[in-house]
Amino acid sequence: MPVAVYFEQFTIGATRSSSTRTITETDIVVHAGHTGDFFPHHVDADFAAKTPFGKRIAHGTMVFSIGIGLAAAEVNPASFSYGHDRLRFIRPVFIGDTIHTRITVVEKADDPRKPQYGRVTERCEVVNQRGETVLVSDHIRMVEKAPEGIRQVG
Amino acid sequence: MPVAVYFEQFTIGATRSSSTRTITETDIVVHAGHTGDFFPHHVDADFAAKTPFGKRIAHGTMVFSIGIGLAAAEVNPASFSYGHDRLRFIRPVFIGDTIHTRITVVEKADDPRKPQYGRVTERCEVVNQRGETVLVSDHIRMVEKAPEGIRQVG
Amino acid sequence: MPVAVYFEQFTIGATRSSSTRTITETDIVVHAGHTGDFFPHHVDADFAAKTPFGKRIAHGTMVFSIGIGLAAAEVNPASFSYGHDRLRFIRPVFIGDTIHTRITVVEKADDPRKPQYGRVTERCEVVNQRGETVLVSDHIRMVEKAPEGIRQVG
Amino acid sequence: MPVAVYFEQFTIGATRSSSTRTITETDIVVHAGHTGDFFPHHVDADFAAKTPFGKRIAHGTMVFSIGIGLAAAEVNPASFSYGHDRLRFIRPVFIGDTIHTRITVVEKADDPRKPQYGRVTERCEVVNQRGETVLVSDHIRMVEKAPEGIRQVG
Amino acid sequence: MPVAVYFEQFTIGATRSSSTRTITETDIVVHAGHTGDFFPHHVDADFAAKTPFGKRIAHGTMVFSIGIGLAAAEVNPASFSYGHDRLRFIRPVFIGDTIHTRITVVEKADDPRKPQYGRVTERCEVVNQRGETVLVSDHIRMVEKAPEGIRQVG
Amino acid sequence: MPVAVYFEQFTIGATRSSSTRTITETDIVVHAGHTGDFFPHHVDADFAAKTPFGKRIAHGTMVFSIGIGLAAAEVNPASFSYGHDRLRFIRPVFIGDTIHTRITVVEKADDPRKPQYGRVTERCEVVNQRGETVLVSDHIRMVEKAPEGIRQVG
Repeated sequence: MPVAVYFEQFTIGATRSSSTRTITETDIVVHAGHTGDFFPHHVDADFAAKTPFGKRIAHGTMVFSIGIGLAAAEVNPASFSYGHDRLRFIRPVFIGDTIHTRITVVEKADDPRKPQYGRVTERCEVVNQRGETVLVSDHIRMVEKAPEGIRQVG
Repeated sequence: MPVAVYFEQFTIGATRSSSTRTITETDIVVHAGHTGDFFPHHVDADFAAKTPFGKRIAHGTMVFSIGIGLAAAEVNPASFSYGHDRLRFIRPVFIGDTIHTRITVVEKADDPRKPQYGRVTERCEVVNQRGETVLVSDHIRMVEKAPEGIRQVG
Repeated sequence: MPVAVYFEQFTIGATRSSSTRTITETDIVVHAGHTGDFFPHHVDADFAAKTPFGKRIAHGTMVFSIGIGLAAAEVNPASFSYGHDRLRFIRPVFIGDTIHTRITVVEKADDPRKPQYGRVTERCEVVNQRGETVLVSDHIRMVEKAPEGIRQVG
Repeated sequence: MPVAVYFEQFTIGATRSSSTRTITETDIVVHAGHTGDFFPHHVDADFAAKTPFGKRIAHGTMVFSIGIGLAAAEVNPASFSYGHDRLRFIRPVFIGDTIHTRITVVEKADDPRKPQYGRVTERCEVVNQRGETVLVSDHIRMVEKAPEGIRQVG
Repeated sequence: MPVAVYFEQFTIGATRSSSTRTITETDIVVHAGHTGDFFPHHVDADFAAKTPFGKRIAHGTMVFSIGIGLAAAEVNPASFSYGHDRLRFIRPVFIGDTIHTRITVVEKADDPRKPQYGRVTERCEVVNQRGETVLVSDHIRMVEKAPEGIRQVG
Repeated sequence: MPVAVYFEQFTIGATRSSSTRTITETDIVVHAGHTGDFFPHHVDADFAAKTPFGKRIAHGTMVFSIGIGLAAAEVNPASFSYGHDRLRFIRPVFIGDTIHTRITVVEKADDPRKPQYGRVTERCEVVNQRGETVLVSDHIRMVEKAPEGIRQVG
C-alpha cells in the first residue's frame, strides 16, 4: 500500500537516484508517433548527419517525459504535481545513451492559497552515461501537511 | 523546403493555433509504457473512480508532449528549443477530451551570451473542447538574428 | 515449410476468405502515429461528430494495410507482389466494425517481359460485419511458372 | 484553420515534395504487428539474408501508408480520397533508407455522377535517399467545384 | 542502488502485493501485434459475443506477462528466474478488469547442481477487482546463498 | 472456416514447426512498456555489458509470449488452453536472434472432472538460429472428444 509522505517529512538537500534506461531508436519512433513531432532532427538520419550533432537526437519532450517517468517510483498519496520551473534542454540525447534522473529537494514553502498544503521543489537532473546533465527542471509538488498527531511526532 | 524565420521576424502578440486531437485511452497506455509511469491515477480505472476527478487522468508529461507536438507544424531551421518556464498542470485531461495548442509570442530578448541569437518566448496554452486551459508553459526558443541583408529589409 | 504455388496452379474464380478482426480506436491511434496522418477525420472525435459520418473513420491506408495483412496467411515462395489496380475506398470503417478480406482470382496473364513469370490478379474485397464491401483492390502478383516436371503433372 | 482548395485551383503539372523520414526496424516491427503480416521477408533477418535483396525489406503496404502519410500535410476540407490507380512496388525499401513523397497533379476530370465534384489525380512518387523511385501510385481525389463567387475570381 | 536479498533472507509464507492496473482494449491490440496471436477470441468482438464469455478475452500469455511484470518492482541482483511450474489460466480477463499480483513464498530448497544457490518458489496469483484469482503460477527463482559474514548475522 | 480437431485426432509424437522471427530491440522496448518490467538486464545496455551475458537479454515472459504466439497458427474451435507445466528459461535470447517454436504432442489423458474433454500436452520448444533450445514448456490443452459419428470414423 502506498504510504503518505507529508510536507514536514521532506528535507532540503535530500537526494535520490532513479533506475537507468538506454534510449533506443524505438523510443524516438514511438515518441514521434505519440506526439506527431516528425521534425527531421529526430526522424531523418540523413538530415541529422549534416547537423552539428551528426546524428538524430531525442525529442526534448521525450527526455523530459522519460526522465520524470524514471523518477516516478513510489506513489505518494499526499502529493500532486503542480508544474515545473526552469526546464532546460542542456545537451542532446542520442540513440544508445543511457540516462537516469537525480532528484534533490531544493526548496520548501507554504502555499499562498492553500494552508493545508506546502510546495516542495525537487530539482530533477537527467544524467547520461558520461555523468553529463542533459536536462534539468525544478519540479514543484503540492504536498499535504501532516495531520496533527503525525506532525508532532515527525 | 523549410524557410528560416529570424528573430526580427517574430512579433510580440502574434498568435496561432494548432490542429486538434482527441486524447484516447490508447494514448495513456502508450505513454505509461513509454515512460514507465504506471501510477494508478493513469492506469487503474477503479482507483481513479474513487479520486475527486472520478476517472483516469492523462499524465502531465503527456499533455505537455502532445501539446508541444501539436504546435510543431513547421520546422524553422533558424531556431532551436532552449527550454520552458512556468510549466503548469492547470486542469486534468480525461479520456475523450479534445485538445489543441494556442501559441502567443510574449517576449523577445537578446541572449546574454550569444549575440547572434535572440530569445523568443512563446506562451503555449493547451486548451480543451470547452475552451478551458489545461496546461500552460512559456517556451523559450533561441532564434538566429537575420543576416545583414535580410535584417535591413525586415 | 512454405510450399510453392505456381502460376499454373491458380484457377480463375477460385476464392478464399481471411480471418476476421475488429477495428479499434487503438488501431487508428497506432496508424496515425505510424504514418504521421493526424487528419481530424481520424483523430478528432468532436470534429468527426459534425461530419456526415458522425464519428471518426479509419484511414484508407489502414483499411488497405490491415485488409491485405489479413489475407497474408501463407507465404508463397514462388510469388511476389507487383502492385494494385483500382484501389477504391468505398465505405467508411468505424471503430468497432469487424472486417475480413475475400480474395478471388480474377485474371491470369503472361508477363510481357519475364517469360518465366505470369501475372495473377486477385480481387481483394474488404467486407464489414454487415456484409458491405468497404474497400476493393485488384492485387497483381508475379508468380513463377512451374518447373517442367511439375507443369506436366499439374 | 484549414482552407478549402477547390477543383478549379488545381493546376496540371503542379508539384510539391513532402518532408523526409528514415525507415527504421521499429517501423517494420510496428507494421507487422499492426497488420498481422509477419512474412519472413520482413521479420526474419536470417531468411532475408539468403534472398536476392540480402536483408529485410519493408512491407509494400507500409511504404504506401507512410508515403501517403508524409504527403498528408494540409487538410483540404473541399476534398476526399476516392482511391488509387496503378499502385506499384518498384524497388525495395530497406531499414535505414530515407524516403519522401513527390506529388504531381497529372489529370483533372469531371466526375461522371456528381456534377459538383471533379476528380484530381495526383501522382505520388515515393523516393529514397539515392533519388530512386521506390513506389508510385495515382491518387484520385474528389474535389468540390468552387462556389460561384470564388470560381469567377479564381 | 539495488540491494541483494539472499536465499536465507526469504521466509516461507511471506507475502506481498503488486500495484494495480486496468486491462484495456489497447493492451489486447498491442499483445496481438506483439505476439502475432490474432485469434478471434481476442480481436473479433462479433465472434466473442457468441462465445460463452460473451466478449473478447485477454490472451493468457498477456495476463501472465503483465501479472509477472506488475510483481517486478525491485531488482534483486542475487537472483535470476529459473522458470514457472503449474501455470494455470483460471478465469478470463476482460477489457476493463483491474488486476494485481499477490506473491507468496511457498517453498525453499537447495539446488541439486549449484551449491551456492537455492531455489525459492513464489506463488504468483493474479487477482481481479472482484478478488477472484484469474491466473496462478509457481515462480522458481535461483537465489544466491549469503556470503559467510552475512549468513551468520541473518 | 476453422476446423475442429478432436482429442482422438491428436497423435503422441506428432510434431510441427512454427514460422520464424527475429527478436529486435523494438520487441524488448515494446515488452518493457507493455508489462512495466524495466529491469536493467533488458533496458540498460551499459549495465548489461557488465553482466556475464555481455548484452541486453529478452524478458523471459516475452520469449514465452512470442514463442507461443508463433505456434498459434490455426484456431481449433474444439480446444482451449488450460495452462503450462515446467516452463523453463534455458538460454538467453539476444537482440538479433531468430527464433521459432517446435511443438510435439507428448501426452494425452482423460480429464478427471470433464468426461467430454481430454488433456493434450504439447511440448513447446523455442529454438534459436543455432538450433539451441532457449525456452521449453509443456502446454496443456483441453480438447473436446469427438462426437459419436466422428469418433467411430477417426
